[in-house]
Amino acid sequence: MTSFVAATGREGAPWGWTDEHRRLQVAVVGASGAVGEELLALLLAARHPIDGLDLLARRYGKLEIGPERTRLSLRPLESLSTASDLPGCDLAFLCTPSEVSRVLGPTLAEAGIRVIDLSSALRMRADVPLVVPEINSDELKARPRLIANPNCTTAIAALPLSVIQRLAPLEEVIVVSYQAASGAGAAGLSTLAAEAREDAGLPAAGAATSPFAARLSRNVIPAIAEVDERGISGEEQKISDELRKILRLPQLPVESTTARVPVERCHSVAVHLRVKGDLDPARVREALREAPGIRLEEDPHGPRPLESARTDAVHVGRIRAGSRGRGSLCFFAVGDQIRKGAALNALQIAAALPADR
Amino acid sequence: MTSFVAATGREGAPWGWTDEHRRLQVAVVGASGAVGEELLALLLAARHPIDGLDLLARRYGKLEIGPERTRLSLRPLESLSTASDLPGCDLAFLCTPSEVSRVLGPTLAEAGIRVIDLSSALRMRADVPLVVPEINSDELKARPRLIANPNCTTAIAALPLSVIQRLAPLEEVIVVSYQAASGAGAAGLSTLAAEAREDAGLPAAGAATSPFAARLSRNVIPAIAEVDERGISGEEQKISDELRKILRLPQLPVESTTARVPVERCHSVAVHLRVKGDLDPARVREALREAPGIRLEEDPHGPRPLESARTDAVHVGRIRAGSRGRGSLCFFAVGDQIRKGAALNALQIAAALPADR
Repeated sequence: MTSFVAATGREGAPWGWTDEHRRLQVAVVGASGAVGEELLALLLAARHPIDGLDLLARRYGKLEIGPERTRLSLRPLESLSTASDLPGCDLAFLCTPSEVSRVLGPTLAEAGIRVIDLSSALRMRADVPLVVPEINSDELKARPRLIANPNCTTAIAALPLSVIQRLAPLEEVIVVSYQAASGAGAAGLSTLAAEAREDAGLPAAGAATSPFAARLSRNVIPAIAEVDERGISGEEQKISDELRKILRLPQLPVESTTARVPVERCHSVAVHLRVKGDLDPARVREALREAPGIRLEEDPHGPRPLESARTDAVHVGRIRAGSRGRGSLCFFAVGDQIRKGAALNALQIAAALPADR
Repeated sequence: MTSFVAATGREGAPWGWTDEHRRLQVAVVGASGAVGEELLALLLAARHPIDGLDLLARRYGKLEIGPERTRLSLRPLESLSTASDLPGCDLAFLCTPSEVSRVLGPTLAEAGIRVIDLSSALRMRADVPLVVPEINSDELKARPRLIANPNCTTAIAALPLSVIQRLAPLEEVIVVSYQAASGAGAAGLSTLAAEAREDAGLPAAGAATSPFAARLSRNVIPAIAEVDERGISGEEQKISDELRKILRLPQLPVESTTARVPVERCHSVAVHLRVKGDLDPARVREALREAPGIRLEEDPHGPRPLESARTDAVHVGRIRAGSRGRGSLCFFAVGDQIRKGAALNALQIAAALPADR
């Protein structure tokens, strides 16, 4: 098995992985998916010892990963059903489908393992904190055993919105997304690649079963996941629910349109919002420039997904006053949804937790 | 010279080109660009006689066009400076850059030629009607000599918005676009094709000078045209100004984000709006189903640009109540911006004018 994560080539662990964390016995469950592989690559780049890693995956066997093409052994996901199947484990990342996480998360947590779940299964449970560390790491102080990592598009939109909320109270938020193929995992990426080869007149070798509702190459698919009887997509519902929970604004009106575009990595969002009172775009720009986890984009035609791939920051640009009167504001944000939208954010959660066992 | 317009393969002229129109002496100025070629292909499909066509272009010479690969002669654009250079001309379509149209449009119109200008040069002049025939063809009753065709994204958004405005007064409109490469003409299309070949490991043969601010393949470029000191792009300003003029709502707050995506043809828009009072999405759906020029999309994951290319309608779907309280509503619309956004709309304007000379 060959990794689809390219060499990250970076040193150290900017998210604060310390020697104490390196002593933790870490399980990565679902290690062969797009997010699991990225998480492993980041852990290896942070010099986490290989013998401190217990890796489980549906596609088990050998995995080559990272710039040094480190060879790792993955055991079958089926070998895990209770906490006793993870001997000595301190911390488990669940990069598993919702139906797996829904059972496994609480089971492992009740047995004393600290669990960070990257699926959508547990995010809206009142007793499970949903955390973007730059925004609400205070929710980790109580040392919860079970923590949820947010939806990728939500995490990217939430970070700049939290900065604005500190300047003036948000009154309404509209998010319109341009989401990458890899948001649907490795199958999404290989489907786009195969379709693009076909478009160029080459055989569509290695085509996976498409996870998309239609052909994606040279196209836009204006709904992600199932659309309910009200006409709202699963992805749109997640953005509304999760933004309200992360920002602790349970009444905030959030409206969105989510669309898939033929981009490999990085989700983009056009955000149109309104705050109470006045808000000078120059003040927003200054606040974003200082905010951790955000990179202010100076190019008037940016930020863009192709140039933001494999970076840690949420890139924010096109900050301007809206045309809907007082307090209306617009911006465009791009983030690598496999990193800040998933693997990196989960590692940041782990790093923000006390490292004691 | 070979046309980049593929065979339209359709019979007749659904926009109402009659025998009376076929007797008109028609000039197409700028006939070798993306819009000019489409306009010619549609005229030929409507059986307009070849000797009733006077074609001028920067890239002059021979042009093969339409399903029958009809051979046409184009003379140099430079041979035209006054109306006397268009002997016998009744009707001129200006598919020319703004700086050409700004001078040529009024010059020809004052000499008695009926002029339909597809550039942005004259659209906001108070004495020039800006027309989408399904919306405001009544402005043609006064038999104006000079008529402007709207911006492509504006025309596509305006059509469903006009239907909604008839149900309940619009209070605010937010348009977020996904615009195709061919919106930047033939150079945009060949740039995307060359970049996509490179992505597939093939030589980028025939690469034009890119009209885009960055690489477009596998990317999203979140601003179209220049961005002004307030942070608003030229395309966004056009959408605001022109929507207000076409809908005759000079005070309507219109806010937009315009982005280029790696799609060949068809602009898409996610529209989030608010009307005064209540508005049932089911009522909107029914009104759109009956509206001329609109095709209601039944697929919950549509409409999509790839499937809408080379069609005449504005495809509208994803109609749903918004989450911003009473009167909030969302929809997604897709239209072939070279057809309804440009060439087809201009022909519809001509057909809606009295055919007398």
